[in-house]
Amino acid sequence: MSVAGRGVTFARGFTAGAVAAGVKHGVADRLDVALLVAERPCVAAAAFTRNQVIAAPCVVTRRHVAKGPLRGVVVNSGNANACTGDQGERDAATMAAAAAKAIGARAEEVAVASTGVIGIPLPVDRISGSIPRIRPTVEGWDDFSRAIMTTDTHPKVAEREVWLRGTPVRIGGVAKGAGMIHPDMATLLAFVTTDARLDAAAADRALRAAVDASFNAISVDGDTSTNDTALLLASGASGIAVEGDAWDPFVDALTDVCGELARAIVADGEGATKLFEVRVRGAATASDARLAARTITTSNLVKTAIHGADPNWGRILAAAGRSGARLDPRRASVRIGGTDVFSRGAPTEWDAAQVRAAFERSTIEIEVDLGVGDATAKAWGCDLSAEYVHINADYTT
Amino acid sequence: MSVAGRGVTFARGFTAGAVAAGVKHGVADRLDVALLVAERPCVAAAAFTRNQVIAAPCVVTRRHVAKGPLRGVVVNSGNANACTGDQGERDAATMAAAAAKAIGARAEEVAVASTGVIGIPLPVDRISGSIPRIRPTVEGWDDFSRAIMTTDTHPKVAEREVWLRGTPVRIGGVAKGAGMIHPDMATLLAFVTTDARLDAAAADRALRAAVDASFNAISVDGDTSTNDTALLLASGASGIAVEGDAWDPFVDALTDVCGELARAIVADGEGATKLFEVRVRGAATASDARLAARTITTSNLVKTAIHGADPNWGRILAAAGRSGARLDPRRASVRIGGTDVFSRGAPTEWDAAQVRAAFERSTIEIEVDLGVGDATAKAWGCDLSAEYVHINADYTT
Repeated sequence: MSVAGRGVTFARGFTAGAVAAGVKHGVADRLDVALLVAERPCVAAAAFTRNQVIAAPCVVTRRHVAKGPLRGVVVNSGNANACTGDQGERDAATMAAAAAKAIGARAEEVAVASTGVIGIPLPVDRISGSIPRIRPTVEGWDDFSRAIMTTDTHPKVAEREVWLRGTPVRIGGVAKGAGMIHPDMATLLAFVTTDARLDAAAADRALRAAVDASFNAISVDGDTSTNDTALLLASGASGIAVEGDAWDPFVDALTDVCGELARAIVADGEGATKLFEVRVRGAATASDARLAARTITTSNLVKTAIHGADPNWGRILAAAGRSGARLDPRRASVRIGGTDVFSRGAPTEWDAAQVRAAFERSTIEIEVDLGVGDATAKAWGCDLSAEYVHINADYTT
Repeated sequence: MSVAGRGVTFARGFTAGAVAAGVKHGVADRLDVALLVAERPCVAAAAFTRNQVIAAPCVVTRRHVAKGPLRGVVVNSGNANACTGDQGERDAATMAAAAAKAIGARAEEVAVASTGVIGIPLPVDRISGSIPRIRPTVEGWDDFSRAIMTTDTHPKVAEREVWLRGTPVRIGGVAKGAGMIHPDMATLLAFVTTDARLDAAAADRALRAAVDASFNAISVDGDTSTNDTALLLASGASGIAVEGDAWDPFVDALTDVCGELARAIVADGEGATKLFEVRVRGAATASDARLAARTITTSNLVKTAIHGADPNWGRILAAAGRSGARLDPRRASVRIGGTDVFSRGAPTEWDAAQVRAAFERSTIEIEVDLGVGDATAKAWGCDLSAEYVHINADYTT
């Protein structure tokens, strides 16, 4: 069940707020420091960028999550605090300490995230000084959602309510991201809260499953950021423990929340005009299926074909063929919007009007059967437009 | 030493020619069937696309090269004969047989290559019928070079003369390719001839070394074609055997020829306005170095930064960081056109005029030190322009 609004404060036990601290260069009135507060200590789990060039706030947050329950999250946009060396880590810790002081917690009970320009020292005094001005409320979710935006054209929130043992359990989240990395902006950040009760290991397992089928299955441009972070906080306020037969429905709902946020990011991708979903089946293994699906979503030739509304099965098949996933060219098939365009190794005579209609839908559906097994996977991508080039080429360091 | 012109007939013992057979849709007067003839049987080696969706001519040529010496090569542009099933293989064999008949050889002594639209049956009768009209000559290298073009804006040839044991040995080649794959066109094809004497195993080893440092180190868009082929023919007409101390100078010259052709392909990449060279050093292993260099050349964010003449070390470093190659962010460095922009883990104060000048050069030089070892690699890429998007989006199947 989808519920409108509330994002990160939809689950019980959370408040949020934001302030304009002037971190975003030249836009002193734009919200750029955000605070999420948990009423009581929350079990937390986190997933970070796999990029070896990892930003200071990720290093600090990983440490804090490992130590135990969290009481809050502080985020700034406008500066990524990445490639900033030891000073960067000290600044991230200082930012967490300032937030902790404001909410009456210890520094290691606060997670920290940053997004924005790389390689410029964080204006940490300005950020720390602004935090006490934030007044977190249940209504503050919208300010929080806007304060973490960079090149995003709109805030992205999602909620699900799932009934576990006769009790409604809530999951809500917010995310930002437009290109996978952009030195002045971008990065993927996602914060998801729930009032379910989980232990740390279960929270970690649930988050990993959800992230793998959502944030790890999307691509705007194949580049991963130095700052990508997905964080789950579980307040336990519903009193319902996620275990036994409650596990699957909870993870499904969590995956739905993450998936909705992930698809919103792709649809809002830099210069994107079309969202497409790739479903791979007939793969030898699940990892082959993921590999093929993700290679197709990142192929520039597929992305430009989607942009041009071209049912170009040759590019789709060739992307699968170079992905490393095993496929049998003589048994492979490609469907676009439910229409066979290449079937068991041979082109078909497709209905042009039917295929044209597929490109008019809000999500363009591409199905590829690799013809070798039973494994499946899904991934989402956006088209590659001249506008993407303009956004990313016209910026000057 | 570089010599102007002649390409595939620069080495002794080869003639070439081409004819307009009307394979290229709607351009009946454009050369589209090309023939290379060797005076006597040549030792041959070949490298093919690693894409599992491999075209029929590659399958047939692999078979013929395995059988032994070759007497000629026949190529058509306008139709890739890919995803055409068993009929495609029969058509490729028929095309080889027609060329063999015209030059008085056996079918398995002829290699065959195709480039063009995917999934459409080859007009094999039209091609076979046109082959007897070709009159191969030493001067025919230019016609050959033009007949194999698709979206290429100009023919690409390269030659080297290398003195081995007091005798000049010649290596010449021709290549075509503009996007790595494009259903109506593109694909990488390269044909290199030499009058050196090699046995089959040595020819294979030399070609693999040269291809790895040239055609396998370039990227226009990260997509690989169904038809990519690089073929080496050695006539032995110089009388000089490539063995002992002649090995290194020969392989260097062969690598130079392939490298010049490869860079010409990138510089002529679809929509490309700038060529850049990435030199990675400080890598833990040679394969790490290659991985980092190639990931940087295929990053859309790096490619758009190059397009915008932006010395964006953050994107370069982040691409290296996600490549899978081991790097130490605190010891890594990035130089652009010889200017340090990021040095041992920290941004530098660079000279803007110096960096601007680097972007004016015909090849933009990017150096990345991963800070963990001694291994090095080079790769070449081109910028990503709005024109690339137009070329690839405005085509309709």
